[in-house]
Amino acid sequence: MDAEEFRRRGKEMIDYVAEYLENVEQRPVYPDLEPGYLRSLIPSEAPLEPESYEDIMKDMERVIMPGITHWHSPYFFAYFPAASSYPAMLADMLSTAIGCIGFSWAASPACTELETVMLDWLGKMLQLPESFIAGTDGQGGGVIQGTASEATLMSLLAARCKAVRRVQTYTSDKSEVEIFSQLVAYTSEQAHSSVERAALIGGVMIRKVPTDSNYAVRGDSLKKMVEEDKAAGLIPFYVCATLGTTPSCAFDQITELGPICNGENMWMHIDAAYAGSAFICPEFRPLLNGIEFADSFNFNPHKWLLVNFDCSAMWVKKRTDIIGAFKMDPLYLKHENQESGLVTDYRHWQIPLGRRFRSLKLWFVFRMYGLQGLQAHIRKQVALAKEFESLVRADKRFEICAEVVLGLVCFRLKGSNELNQNLLKKITNSREIHLVPCQLSGRFVLRFVICARTTESRHIQQAWQHITQLTFELLQEPNH
Amino acid sequence: MDAEEFRRRGKEMIDYVAEYLENVEQRPVYPDLEPGYLRSLIPSEAPLEPESYEDIMKDMERVIMPGITHWHSPYFFAYFPAASSYPAMLADMLSTAIGCIGFSWAASPACTELETVMLDWLGKMLQLPESFIAGTDGQGGGVIQGTASEATLMSLLAARCKAVRRVQTYTSDKSEVEIFSQLVAYTSEQAHSSVERAALIGGVMIRKVPTDSNYAVRGDSLKKMVEEDKAAGLIPFYVCATLGTTPSCAFDQITELGPICNGENMWMHIDAAYAGSAFICPEFRPLLNGIEFADSFNFNPHKWLLVNFDCSAMWVKKRTDIIGAFKMDPLYLKHENQESGLVTDYRHWQIPLGRRFRSLKLWFVFRMYGLQGLQAHIRKQVALAKEFESLVRADKRFEICAEVVLGLVCFRLKGSNELNQNLLKKITNSREIHLVPCQLSGRFVLRFVICARTTESRHIQQAWQHITQLTFELLQEPNH
Repeated sequence: MDAEEFRRRGKEMIDYVAEYLENVEQRPVYPDLEPGYLRSLIPSEAPLEPESYEDIMKDMERVIMPGITHWHSPYFFAYFPAASSYPAMLADMLSTAIGCIGFSWAASPACTELETVMLDWLGKMLQLPESFIAGTDGQGGGVIQGTASEATLMSLLAARCKAVRRVQTYTSDKSEVEIFSQLVAYTSEQAHSSVERAALIGGVMIRKVPTDSNYAVRGDSLKKMVEEDKAAGLIPFYVCATLGTTPSCAFDQITELGPICNGENMWMHIDAAYAGSAFICPEFRPLLNGIEFADSFNFNPHKWLLVNFDCSAMWVKKRTDIIGAFKMDPLYLKHENQESGLVTDYRHWQIPLGRRFRSLKLWFVFRMYGLQGLQAHIRKQVALAKEFESLVRADKRFEICAEVVLGLVCFRLKGSNELNQNLLKKITNSREIHLVPCQLSGRFVLRFVICARTTESRHIQQAWQHITQLTFELLQEPNH
Repeated sequence: MDAEEFRRRGKEMIDYVAEYLENVEQRPVYPDLEPGYLRSLIPSEAPLEPESYEDIMKDMERVIMPGITHWHSPYFFAYFPAASSYPAMLADMLSTAIGCIGFSWAASPACTELETVMLDWLGKMLQLPESFIAGTDGQGGGVIQGTASEATLMSLLAARCKAVRRVQTYTSDKSEVEIFSQLVAYTSEQAHSSVERAALIGGVMIRKVPTDSNYAVRGDSLKKMVEEDKAAGLIPFYVCATLGTTPSCAFDQITELGPICNGENMWMHIDAAYAGSAFICPEFRPLLNGIEFADSFNFNPHKWLLVNFDCSAMWVKKRTDIIGAFKMDPLYLKHENQESGLVTDYRHWQIPLGRRFRSLKLWFVFRMYGLQGLQAHIRKQVALAKEFESLVRADKRFEICAEVVLGLVCFRLKGSNELNQNLLKKITNSREIHLVPCQLSGRFVLRFVICARTTESRHIQQAWQHITQLTFELLQEPNH
């Protein structure tokens, strides 16, 4: 395919994409097929000779589309949103075409520098403390990670390294591995599985702090655990607090946790993967109060800020902490501006070496929407969640299971877990709407999240009508 | 921006991208600017209200392009190639539009299933042993990682987990961390820095095995180190062999290393990040002989197989080994087909939880090029490297520093390291071609890699003419 054919096929593809997104609500949101469906639909080996582009595009509808869970259908209410917007898609095309691998400043200066400045823009939109902003006299700054899992892991590794150095200053005979075996990390029992995984990768213990009736970690519970562990000769070194947990969008009390972390020399990482986008609205910004105690902070614009995956924004208060976790400079990656102190080589901030030019997506979205446009998007989706909450509350057969703060509504039928499992099964099998469950205080709960950018009130009303219809059918069944 | 405007802007963007790639050779390949150049060119905060699309695109030329190192210029010969092709770009647009996050089978079955089958196609193209192919009776299969660094880390973590379990079966009183402190990994002194990093992350020791005169690790050297370490009470558990090292594209002797690894119960991972693409050609396939001993294998189609970043292909011989490294299943990620054994949940195979629909790029590229088209691409670039090698060899002032097997030529001026450093400085500052150095046996060496898909003989001839012109100037200087 030469440039001429690309011009033609590319324009056809633009139309295909626009058509797909405009009409996605007419497709069943969840696929109806058995595991292994795809293998028999295509050859078992790659072709020797080129095939026609028409045949490939025909296979999109024959092979791929029947197997897609349509995350951008306005009837998709599962997991958390995957952000999507036209400006981000255009920027992504540019990023693919430029195709630079931005592991160091020299590998493409614009890729590194736009990222630093865009993270400053975003940090200011969130009113982060100045110490997190690179373009100040401070020592902090931002980076785009692929996912929140990677941000959590990077923060834990930086904290581990810092803890080892600290311990070794007063007990110089202890080996690194000996210290590892005494380190303890903490997170909420409601935290995302990636936090436990980060500890597992880093080879350190992790303890899960119990939560209060709002599923939030409080200062007292953390304090108690830390005291116990210190008494047992362990070294508390890291706390991952969550703002907006995955099960119920609960908010750990970081104003209580922060002073404990700072007092005990524990690294405080704040994971606001989903909720973070909301903090650009003044009315939700108080949820971030306490950020001043944190060593690192992360949220995913690719969840709720109209920037397509992947784009996970992370800030650290001290750049040297995160770089120190594993700086390595083989000769083929050295460049002459490296030692000037002005230059960021982002490969030291992350697990992968290679990285795409992801900040273009932020730049396009910030400028095409403006801060007000982004705020409007958040507010609209929160209002839709509140609308759904009202529908649930008005039906006495149902209960709301956690405070609705942002775009997630946790609800269930009053009754057994089995009853709710059966309701969810009916919903999933209907393929008209899609949602997933969670567990809260031992109860099986349905999570309803406003996801697609194009979800409107009529979709919420339709979804609720559908749920109540299936509930009616379920309650008619003899053995419900 | 609504769908209508996206159709218009998207088509303009297709033209912009085609125009950029068609004419990229007219841009200086390496930017001429000082660190920090970008910040003063744009506002210090995001706009409150939307800006016009025209203004943003104008800024592409004003702000971004001057700061780009043009990886797809035919005069770019640095690092290793970043693959790029029009079919991959079209597939990437689709992947962005569908925008599913494929962490589990249920999250989008097509995303998982196409990946499994495409890795089978690719594995067959490389003639991998059947045990690595998912669609057989074997226990293996493939996965797309973001980067080779992540593949290396995953293999090391899987090996660590397996080693701990093995040791604990005969010394059940040993704690995990105690075992960690005895584990030793091995890799070439020429291996990529990401291998050392993986060990650092995993909290295990790593030893660098010296190489022979071809910069390759041989069986004897590994054997000797392993014996020493066992005698010292340590537990050798992991070897990362490299096929095509970053400095000189050297090939560790895996037919010698393999039996040692298997005999000592050490996990053998093979990192062929760059060279792996060449193994689709029968004449280069012998370089992969010994793969049958490996537990895992990885290479980057996003380097040399015309698939845009990111797409790093990894295979394991036993799926359960890699999944076992950290399988976790919170309720919101469970789905009904999970326990059937037919289903792959790729989140257990990798560090991040989220993942894009990357196999579409493989599917488009395999079908639009066919195996023969891809082989032609590899062969053409190897021939261009040989052409450059001949030019160097014909000039008695220069020497070739390592055997030219694929697309990388290591060369230098006969003379001091300083002389060669000065030559590279001149080349870099000229901005007409771009390459980076390496160190071989203490000598400063210039690496010349065929990178862009559009590089032709005339660019090689032009590059060499340019190098000799700068050499002439350098040698005229009084203090050279």
